[in-house]
Amino acid sequence: MSQSSISPRLTEALTVTSQAVNAELDRLLPQADGPENRVIEAMRYSSLDGGKRLRPFLVMQSASLFRVAESAAIRVACAIEMIHCYSLIHDDLPCMDNDDLRRGRPTCHRHFDESTALLAGDALQTRAFEVLANPATHPDPQVRCDLVSELAHASGGLGMVGGQTIDLQAHTLDLDVAGITRLQQMKTGRLFSFSCEAGAVLGKGHGELRLALRNYSHDLGLAFQIADDILDVEGDAEEVGKQVQKDADAGKATFVSLLGLDRARSQAAMLAEQACRHLDPFGEAADLMRDVARFVVQRRS
Amino acid sequence: MSQSSISPRLTEALTVTSQAVNAELDRLLPQADGPENRVIEAMRYSSLDGGKRLRPFLVMQSASLFRVAESAAIRVACAIEMIHCYSLIHDDLPCMDNDDLRRGRPTCHRHFDESTALLAGDALQTRAFEVLANPATHPDPQVRCDLVSELAHASGGLGMVGGQTIDLQAHTLDLDVAGITRLQQMKTGRLFSFSCEAGAVLGKGHGELRLALRNYSHDLGLAFQIADDILDVEGDAEEVGKQVQKDADAGKATFVSLLGLDRARSQAAMLAEQACRHLDPFGEAADLMRDVARFVVQRRS
Repeated sequence: MSQSSISPRLTEALTVTSQAVNAELDRLLPQADGPENRVIEAMRYSSLDGGKRLRPFLVMQSASLFRVAESAAIRVACAIEMIHCYSLIHDDLPCMDNDDLRRGRPTCHRHFDESTALLAGDALQTRAFEVLANPATHPDPQVRCDLVSELAHASGGLGMVGGQTIDLQAHTLDLDVAGITRLQQMKTGRLFSFSCEAGAVLGKGHGELRLALRNYSHDLGLAFQIADDILDVEGDAEEVGKQVQKDADAGKATFVSLLGLDRARSQAAMLAEQACRHLDPFGEAADLMRDVARFVVQRRS
Repeated sequence: MSQSSISPRLTEALTVTSQAVNAELDRLLPQADGPENRVIEAMRYSSLDGGKRLRPFLVMQSASLFRVAESAAIRVACAIEMIHCYSLIHDDLPCMDNDDLRRGRPTCHRHFDESTALLAGDALQTRAFEVLANPATHPDPQVRCDLVSELAHASGGLGMVGGQTIDLQAHTLDLDVAGITRLQQMKTGRLFSFSCEAGAVLGKGHGELRLALRNYSHDLGLAFQIADDILDVEGDAEEVGKQVQKDADAGKATFVSLLGLDRARSQAAMLAEQACRHLDPFGEAADLMRDVARFVVQRRS
């Protein structure tokens, strides 16, 4: 597949969603004029105007499949982005990855300081759940509770944070492909799954359709991670917007170190195509989600 | 007031609640057998078997005023304790207070390591919201959403974390009594208020009764904090279970530095009595909550 197969309609749709997410995040993040404003500024610094907004885009797209109001979906999109951004802030801290660069700018603790970054991550997580529980997200409180439960499960000790915990020990664990796959499904896959299934939760879509989204998200998340490992080896720090070659330097097993570049590349492409096929029940309505699957394995950043 | 005025019935009731909270936390905290178990162990290390469980006790007591089932109240009690413990873990980190001792044991990052402690705090916060959103907490999903919203508001950037942010800058802010009061109301007061009002949320008690609990919690929280400042000056590290003299060493204004020891002591006692009077509408049913108010200003740890 060539770079040109990234569809112009996806580029445009990602831009539209990204702008809508920035505007809504700006409304949803708190404002303050006392000295507590320092942590609010840090929350805003690390979540506004950055990133591809892939997870929010998946929320918006899956919501459109179930004819969910955009005004509701955008709040869930922002909640998942807050969780994602909180995890990035904490991941970048000196005691974790000790990164200076994120999305092409100084990381939160470099721009502010470590304690402010720690608290900004904490408060972003809190705000995500507060947004989901608010009546503006959905008129049915049971749906809001489901969203809180599922996002918590996806991001907690048995989800994203559990995956990060395994990742911290990865250099001592001698993980094989199955082990790396489990790690990545926890660390990044669960949030992708939440994003893809959020539309079904909001639109009360069950059974086959929800399962189709879950299967799509599994393949998408894995393809995304393999592509990430490839970028870590091949990418240019300036283009990627963060440090590269970190995993190799840390002596960690990755999909690339275990499979080799060629097999990793073909595996990612295969997973992307498989992800697309899971969307068959939605017909053309899911075309942008198919574009996403092809995009994640071809991205340069 | 002498040490002997701490009622034996409070000592006994605190012990009963503490045991119930430990047992329920043990059930509510996740279990795992993969390498992610390291973060689960850290969550358990920092939340089981420690502390006075004052916030859970207030939840249980306020719930009893509205005849809420104990099986529901204990889950809310555990959620607030998870938030409290997450904040302690993060507060103890080197980039924050850099404490080695908590509840008489090595702090989480000293017993494990910094990154595990960071993630354990993150996952405890997540789990708190997951517990609240679960149907077992209350049959009415609107009540569960209210609990999530209110706990998030109390602990987020405009609540506890906002207070911590001000506290980080306190040595440069030249705070007066009003400034310290606002800081402390955010940093510790909001969680006390949530605890005291949780019974009204669970029991759908509104109006005058809920306001009475809020007023009680305001005075209680402030009394608690003044007593904390006094302990920081007068306490013995071994008895208190954490480092003392920290605020004075850090050159921070405290109630003691601003008011002097004598006025701080009489102010705390006055607030405790005022807190008790707010409970008049509940009659004798609130006697243990009155005991709590008197206890917090007399405690030695």
